[in-house]
Amino acid sequence: MSTKVNVGIIGAGRIGKVHAENLAYRIPQARPIAIADLFLEAAERCAADCQIPSAVQDYRQILENPDIEAVVICSSTDTHARMIEEAAAVGKHIFCEKPIDFDLARIDKALEAVDKAGVKLQIGFNRRFDPNFKRVREMVATGKIGVPHILRITSRDPAPPPIEYIKVSGGIFLDMSIHDFDMARYLMGSEVSEIYATGGVMVDPRIGQAGDIDTAVITLRFENGAIGTIDNSRRAVYGYDQRVEVFGSGGMVAVSNNTPDTAVYSNAEGVHSSLPLFFFVERYTEAYVAEMKEFIECIQQDKTPPVTGLDGRIPVVMGYAAMKSYEENRPVRLSEIE
Amino acid sequence: MSTKVNVGIIGAGRIGKVHAENLAYRIPQARPIAIADLFLEAAERCAADCQIPSAVQDYRQILENPDIEAVVICSSTDTHARMIEEAAAVGKHIFCEKPIDFDLARIDKALEAVDKAGVKLQIGFNRRFDPNFKRVREMVATGKIGVPHILRITSRDPAPPPIEYIKVSGGIFLDMSIHDFDMARYLMGSEVSEIYATGGVMVDPRIGQAGDIDTAVITLRFENGAIGTIDNSRRAVYGYDQRVEVFGSGGMVAVSNNTPDTAVYSNAEGVHSSLPLFFFVERYTEAYVAEMKEFIECIQQDKTPPVTGLDGRIPVVMGYAAMKSYEENRPVRLSEIE
Amino acid sequence: MSTKVNVGIIGAGRIGKVHAENLAYRIPQARPIAIADLFLEAAERCAADCQIPSAVQDYRQILENPDIEAVVICSSTDTHARMIEEAAAVGKHIFCEKPIDFDLARIDKALEAVDKAGVKLQIGFNRRFDPNFKRVREMVATGKIGVPHILRITSRDPAPPPIEYIKVSGGIFLDMSIHDFDMARYLMGSEVSEIYATGGVMVDPRIGQAGDIDTAVITLRFENGAIGTIDNSRRAVYGYDQRVEVFGSGGMVAVSNNTPDTAVYSNAEGVHSSLPLFFFVERYTEAYVAEMKEFIECIQQDKTPPVTGLDGRIPVVMGYAAMKSYEENRPVRLSEIE
Amino acid sequence: MSTKVNVGIIGAGRIGKVHAENLAYRIPQARPIAIADLFLEAAERCAADCQIPSAVQDYRQILENPDIEAVVICSSTDTHARMIEEAAAVGKHIFCEKPIDFDLARIDKALEAVDKAGVKLQIGFNRRFDPNFKRVREMVATGKIGVPHILRITSRDPAPPPIEYIKVSGGIFLDMSIHDFDMARYLMGSEVSEIYATGGVMVDPRIGQAGDIDTAVITLRFENGAIGTIDNSRRAVYGYDQRVEVFGSGGMVAVSNNTPDTAVYSNAEGVHSSLPLFFFVERYTEAYVAEMKEFIECIQQDKTPPVTGLDGRIPVVMGYAAMKSYEENRPVRLSEIE
Repeated sequence: MSTKVNVGIIGAGRIGKVHAENLAYRIPQARPIAIADLFLEAAERCAADCQIPSAVQDYRQILENPDIEAVVICSSTDTHARMIEEAAAVGKHIFCEKPIDFDLARIDKALEAVDKAGVKLQIGFNRRFDPNFKRVREMVATGKIGVPHILRITSRDPAPPPIEYIKVSGGIFLDMSIHDFDMARYLMGSEVSEIYATGGVMVDPRIGQAGDIDTAVITLRFENGAIGTIDNSRRAVYGYDQRVEVFGSGGMVAVSNNTPDTAVYSNAEGVHSSLPLFFFVERYTEAYVAEMKEFIECIQQDKTPPVTGLDGRIPVVMGYAAMKSYEENRPVRLSEIE
Repeated sequence: MSTKVNVGIIGAGRIGKVHAENLAYRIPQARPIAIADLFLEAAERCAADCQIPSAVQDYRQILENPDIEAVVICSSTDTHARMIEEAAAVGKHIFCEKPIDFDLARIDKALEAVDKAGVKLQIGFNRRFDPNFKRVREMVATGKIGVPHILRITSRDPAPPPIEYIKVSGGIFLDMSIHDFDMARYLMGSEVSEIYATGGVMVDPRIGQAGDIDTAVITLRFENGAIGTIDNSRRAVYGYDQRVEVFGSGGMVAVSNNTPDTAVYSNAEGVHSSLPLFFFVERYTEAYVAEMKEFIECIQQDKTPPVTGLDGRIPVVMGYAAMKSYEENRPVRLSEIE
Repeated sequence: MSTKVNVGIIGAGRIGKVHAENLAYRIPQARPIAIADLFLEAAERCAADCQIPSAVQDYRQILENPDIEAVVICSSTDTHARMIEEAAAVGKHIFCEKPIDFDLARIDKALEAVDKAGVKLQIGFNRRFDPNFKRVREMVATGKIGVPHILRITSRDPAPPPIEYIKVSGGIFLDMSIHDFDMARYLMGSEVSEIYATGGVMVDPRIGQAGDIDTAVITLRFENGAIGTIDNSRRAVYGYDQRVEVFGSGGMVAVSNNTPDTAVYSNAEGVHSSLPLFFFVERYTEAYVAEMKEFIECIQQDKTPPVTGLDGRIPVVMGYAAMKSYEENRPVRLSEIE
Repeated sequence: MSTKVNVGIIGAGRIGKVHAENLAYRIPQARPIAIADLFLEAAERCAADCQIPSAVQDYRQILENPDIEAVVICSSTDTHARMIEEAAAVGKHIFCEKPIDFDLARIDKALEAVDKAGVKLQIGFNRRFDPNFKRVREMVATGKIGVPHILRITSRDPAPPPIEYIKVSGGIFLDMSIHDFDMARYLMGSEVSEIYATGGVMVDPRIGQAGDIDTAVITLRFENGAIGTIDNSRRAVYGYDQRVEVFGSGGMVAVSNNTPDTAVYSNAEGVHSSLPLFFFVERYTEAYVAEMKEFIECIQQDKTPPVTGLDGRIPVVMGYAAMKSYEENRPVRLSEIE
């Protein structure tokens, strides 16, 4: 157990705060000692809440701090690749939120920098650490469902983000489906070879005006022969809908949503139960803790992180394949990308 | 397969109609050839609906009909014992609705008549033939839950019967709990030795004015050492609530309500599913068919009916024990009755 | 109520026997008076079981029988179109199992004959009459889920049919998915404009040797903009898996499988519940009765049948589009067929 | 937010460690600064794990520490009352595990000391803080189920404690049912007036030899007229079973067990889901945090604790009533105790 890992956090937005709190209060082996945000006040507020000794505006102060062993990058996507390179250059271990970048060449450059520096890099695909999905993976991996034939992922958000965000999001496939692409690879233990994506603007016409779609249905062909479907919506009025099902020669495993309680209320109108936990912060509370715990452990025990740089790159390739498929209305092989 | 069993039905009320329809349309081995009701028009309407050739006012015409091999007694409770005796006297097999009578001496006399005549008698405890409860019984009987420790029965009606009915019903323990007393014996395969009953008037004060209660919670001690609880209500606003649970050294088995469909509707207010099937006619549709099929089979194959005269008698004893317990607010042994 | 409809049944195979039994015992308004089967013994056995007075080898005896008002065609697919024409020619109302034919021109000819004769024709898409799917349709139709966005159908058989059957089945899309194509149109109340189908041989290599596939995932584009997915497998080891889910702007409705009982058994290993009802005969018992009841009612009350000849034709077109899509690995518009 | 509350923990056993960890890592407003245990090594290990600066053998060192504002008493039951008095005497706020004592006179003396000192006292009935039970309470309190008629509590442990513990436990009613007695009062918002308890030795004969029983079924009469049942078992092979149901004039609310995941696995044998969370540490993880958070908040904001000394006393009275009822096999009024 010995020495704690000193961590610097870059970005004090929603996800930055989640990580800061977890590092401060839920992961005894870590010690967050500095947080940076361009908007200094945000960094200061988060530092106060989480008892982090230092709040700075310039992330370089974190990179330059010799006491800091690892950085957690939670800034906007366009800064990820550069910060990875810079952090690697100064020998810091790196936890980076997804996606690494929208540009595959820049991703490759960042991953090379990580390789060269020999630091650890973990990408923030937090859903892999959710007890439901872990259990599904475990059952697939141990052969409980036999040879996998069909994968089904439902992934719907409770509400779309602001239009301003949509415009810089990279589009639904790179912003939203990307999590499901990672999930698909993770659950099946096989790479995707071909993607067919269809979709439309059904939730909000302004999303269409911003050049994006808000509803998508995606078919995946896996290298092992299995087939997957993903359905995405930017708005499920009943809340965050996160379910998967894997069907195979030996059976099926499916997970449903988590709810704040198990109360079932029966009255003259029907039988009523609780809505799913509201959104990712509520649903994946424990998953955020678990992924960070594993990252810290990988540093302490010198292990390979459970979600590597390559795991961060492939879903981006899948996102481009989906985009191309949607635009050309035909199945697209991943080998067509790049 | 060979010859069909000719049946006469006595009583064309709600339950009489259920049996008439089943005999006419669902049980190929039976042929209902006459139906009697004091209210002749009811008999005639039922005969027309079910294509029964003869409708009569006087049940004696059914007993005297030499073509009739078996009678189904669905008249009011006060006539059951007498009709059993008369039917036995003329050698008819008998299916009789519960309870046989409220008077144990009269029950005994009726059962003696049946014994002496050597005819078959089956009592209408239809719930034993419900797939859910059969499955629980099967799991208990085959040792799947190990040694039974605790039985829980929930049995609530969607709405109380008319006050006029309440007045002649024999009270909640003999009218409503009696089904649960039978279920308790059936599921546990052990006799009850002691009963503690409590309850009150919570649903409708007029039920109290009629000298009855409408809500009851009953504790049973079984001869094998297990303990049971029954809770009854005359009105569950969400419908007919019929659940049981048996807990033992090796596990637990529980059955919940049946619904008309499995639809789950999620909207911004919650997750909603369907109410239970409305009342006994809907919930026990198949159980009514199954009990009658077994009765007909017992006649054809000369087997002992699955619910005997004694099975009809014991729940009445339990009803009296519960009544006494409620009145004296103390546990009452079944041996105190009689 | 008045007069019963006299019915002749053509074909005494598995599905013919289901209809014969329902007409004999479950639908008081119908009277099955003759059954035909090339294999006379099968017709005779079914006639005996269902108390049908006449069993014949040649279906023409049924068409020529002036007492027969309606025929139920349950013979092999290749005879359907011809029999429809012949039955229409002699003025019989027609209930015909799906599919009408694999040849669109022959379907059109049969439907013209029906039109010209002015007889009623109902196609046996029984699943529409299942309480679960009816409920989903009702909720979609009444706007409970708002504007429909995404439809998901899971439809998996417990075991593949014999290879000999596979060879003449028309292939998975025309034999198995066809039911789901009908369900998709029924639930959404909108026509499909484009289909993308993918799949493979995962269950049994002999199915591949027979030129068919056994696993399929199909994407549907509806004219109203919605998107659907269907997944099919010829073998789910846990049984007949028949679920649908419709997601829309106002919510979601989903139905799951039906089980023989609601028993939940908890032991040291886990919490266990019952497998789905085994196959279509068990799962759709009530749906088969309901579709036939409606057919008989349409005759008695001179109404348009709920599943018309056109409803029988369109899924065949969809089957061909799916086949073409699978072969060419691209989305195919329905307008490309024919 | 201001100043943190300095806390001393007395007792480093299983429950002491739970509170220590929560105070250290989950409740930013608290600061555990010392922990005492007769077995010094246990205190030291816990101090190390939770980064508590001081570990001592004698709890008096905690009471004498002027920096400590509140104590958390997790020592053995026989020390609770004395420590409450001593802590009150030196002006410390007190969180004390249940039960306060088995002797009502000693409880009263302790409560008087608390009153006199004007310190806060909260009793560790953690289940009140479980999201499921809170939701039930909320629905009852807001009238969602109308007037409550029937309460059902199932409370079964995964395995009995060691026989040595059983001998000093006070018996099942004071050790195990006591939690359910508190739950009953909490959920119904009404006091219990009469108790009927029955039970037996079904799990382990050694428990009987130790003078206790291991299985109990308890009937409660509430002052508001409602009726409750509790069933307890020292061993449910499928795990910790913690369910409640409240039925009333307007409906019913029920909560079931929590599971580590929502995975449903279907194979040829059946449909399988996960066992409940193992025992109280796993099931009530969040409840333990929540109760302590509220205690700390009550100190900071000078509010009355949500579970008072009286709330600690009444379940002990109920335990004695249950014991007497069991011994005399008759309903016992709470007024008979003392």
